[in-house]
Amino acid sequence: MNRPGELSRLYEEYKRIKDKKQSLDMTRGKPSPVQLDTMQKLLTAVQTNEDCIDGNIDCRNYGVFDGLPKAKMLFSELLDISPDQIVVCGNSSLNIMYDTIAHAMLLGTGKGAKPWCKYEKLSFLCPSPGYDRHFRVTQFFGFNLIYIPMLPTGPDMELIEKIVSEDESVKGMWCIPKYSNPTGYTFSDDTVIRLAKMKTAAKDFRVFWDNAYAVHDLYDTSDNLLNVLEEAYKYGNEDRFLIFASTSKISYSGAGISCFASSADNVKWFKDALKVQTIGHDKINQLRHVKIFPDLKAIKSQMDIHRKILLPKFELVLNCFEKEFSDFSEISWTKPRGGYFISLTVLNNTAKRVVSLAKEAGLLLTSAGSGFPYEIDPNDNNIRIAPSFPSCEELEKALELLVICVKIAYYEAKETK
Amino acid sequence: MNRPGELSRLYEEYKRIKDKKQSLDMTRGKPSPVQLDTMQKLLTAVQTNEDCIDGNIDCRNYGVFDGLPKAKMLFSELLDISPDQIVVCGNSSLNIMYDTIAHAMLLGTGKGAKPWCKYEKLSFLCPSPGYDRHFRVTQFFGFNLIYIPMLPTGPDMELIEKIVSEDESVKGMWCIPKYSNPTGYTFSDDTVIRLAKMKTAAKDFRVFWDNAYAVHDLYDTSDNLLNVLEEAYKYGNEDRFLIFASTSKISYSGAGISCFASSADNVKWFKDALKVQTIGHDKINQLRHVKIFPDLKAIKSQMDIHRKILLPKFELVLNCFEKEFSDFSEISWTKPRGGYFISLTVLNNTAKRVVSLAKEAGLLLTSAGSGFPYEIDPNDNNIRIAPSFPSCEELEKALELLVICVKIAYYEAKETK
Repeated sequence: MNRPGELSRLYEEYKRIKDKKQSLDMTRGKPSPVQLDTMQKLLTAVQTNEDCIDGNIDCRNYGVFDGLPKAKMLFSELLDISPDQIVVCGNSSLNIMYDTIAHAMLLGTGKGAKPWCKYEKLSFLCPSPGYDRHFRVTQFFGFNLIYIPMLPTGPDMELIEKIVSEDESVKGMWCIPKYSNPTGYTFSDDTVIRLAKMKTAAKDFRVFWDNAYAVHDLYDTSDNLLNVLEEAYKYGNEDRFLIFASTSKISYSGAGISCFASSADNVKWFKDALKVQTIGHDKINQLRHVKIFPDLKAIKSQMDIHRKILLPKFELVLNCFEKEFSDFSEISWTKPRGGYFISLTVLNNTAKRVVSLAKEAGLLLTSAGSGFPYEIDPNDNNIRIAPSFPSCEELEKALELLVICVKIAYYEAKETK
Repeated sequence: MNRPGELSRLYEEYKRIKDKKQSLDMTRGKPSPVQLDTMQKLLTAVQTNEDCIDGNIDCRNYGVFDGLPKAKMLFSELLDISPDQIVVCGNSSLNIMYDTIAHAMLLGTGKGAKPWCKYEKLSFLCPSPGYDRHFRVTQFFGFNLIYIPMLPTGPDMELIEKIVSEDESVKGMWCIPKYSNPTGYTFSDDTVIRLAKMKTAAKDFRVFWDNAYAVHDLYDTSDNLLNVLEEAYKYGNEDRFLIFASTSKISYSGAGISCFASSADNVKWFKDALKVQTIGHDKINQLRHVKIFPDLKAIKSQMDIHRKILLPKFELVLNCFEKEFSDFSEISWTKPRGGYFISLTVLNNTAKRVVSLAKEAGLLLTSAGSGFPYEIDPNDNNIRIAPSFPSCEELEKALELLVICVKIAYYEAKETK
């Protein structure tokens, strides 16, 4: 398998790059400064006292705990859900998800359901590779995390249907239904329908539907995602879906606005806690957003701007992988049509080695295993590629090093066999 | 007691005012638009891409979950607590208090303490009259709320010391130590010291120290409040105090910044949850604040501006009460030197009647009882006066009506005796 001398040639290359003492970072799916620069208009969207008044609402003062009506309208258009089934919150949808789990833990999911914290055992489904911060929330609260393989059509539905129908301890499931982190996969119609209609042993089973990349296309056409709430209504399972979205990767990742959406009953349940929790989220920032984004069209124009910055980076990665890895049948990668990540599958049992080699030579990657429950990748072969933050120049340097690390780990593993 | 014809004269007056069909609102301690107008500079404190960069932090992007260092410095000066014992959050300190209770409920207070939700019975001390939203948080989570009378020196310490030393179910206590809502009382040195050193049956007893009005003086001199954390260190009880503050009544009540402060161990405990809950709060808004308020001096200048707007309103109320009620030995009121409220004590068993009479004639007051556990005022004699929001002109009209309602209820009660 190892062409003679290949590994020693790679070690030499590796040493040459390491000696440059580069400092490259591809750990997180952060927008680049160039992307953030395109949103400068948000900073001056609300400048005067008069600007702060929206209809009869003084956005500077207390109140309107469930969000500005116009901000609800905006997310309503984005998610195709009625505005009265939407609550607009602060800058972090992760924060809403955490709070929603805490609420279910302490007070149950409503309609007399027992608080989750009263159960002996709690489990949560984690389609993997997935979003490390999702899994960490449920791990923090002591859930047993169950690994569900992620397929190009979405999570393995056959396995899910079996588990949720049998195991009452399974209270919920994480999902990024469109351009999933890190595979970029979008759930197929069949996956969405099966999630909407499947029978669950736990009556209070909840799907955390994190629609983080709803409008985050890389190409002219968008992946089609069924409206899960509409599907769920057909089977009377509309309470099953807790939907989240934000402008984190539309406006500012640190200073956007976020929303919760669900069935009318769930929205009431959510608001019952929210109005105890806060007098209201930052309405001035909500107002800034609806001034810059009066409708979905305005959001889509902004996404076109992001796309023009992001696509060349994705193409750099994809072209590089194509050129360098197409001869390796055991190395593969996803080709997302949107989102922020590419999922690279290296030779089994070498992902950790790749990440550690890269780190030693000055390239920080997301820890191997981080997209899996308990941060354990059962095959130790998944690496999350986050091309958004570095410049194209830095990305080229990062890729040059990454390729060498992947190949070194590959040949090392083959040699020891 | 009733001068002949007094009641019928009052009814006539009442009818005359009611017929004007006024619409007056004194329900909440909201800053007036005039106060909010003085903070216009905050809106344009961060205008350009370059403005968003603070040292090596891009405030637009993800990260820095525990707050901008400069914002920590600001609250450090405000609270006289080391900046590394401060975490800066979003726009709502109530939200942090809610989250902190949820955290203690689900995971305990740290150092191996049992999660509060695992106890059969949980109780919380509520110095009353107090802040309705505080009490509602603990009521929402199922605590047994215990009424503690509020004295001019702070909560009744003798009663507190007895209860907490005997009753292990008492896990905590609400406090607004300075210019308390609604009495305006500031805890005396003796009260602070006794809270710091008292023995508690529950080892994980926590004082929620909501220092909401730390710099909210109405006069040239400020009430002196001992540094509770400093006192607590003397007795090894520094983990007992969870301290909260915000700029809600400094900058914008709906769009300020807030903070959590405590012992080093508690800050670690708090951050352990926070970093799972969010990637970070809105740093651009934190940056706006530190640009406008580089130090405590800048905050104090702003508070002088608020004071000039607020003091005439407080004086209107106090002068009116002096003029109208000084002959009534059973009617009294507090004379706060800061904060947002005046607490009016009417004849026993007439507060509800007063609020209902006022409502019927077009003046909304905070519900009678709202400052007490379960919204039950044992003497039905407390009314919270919130003079900040209306203009002086509206306030005069409101007071005219309020006085009549108080007297009607007074004479009605005397007559039926």
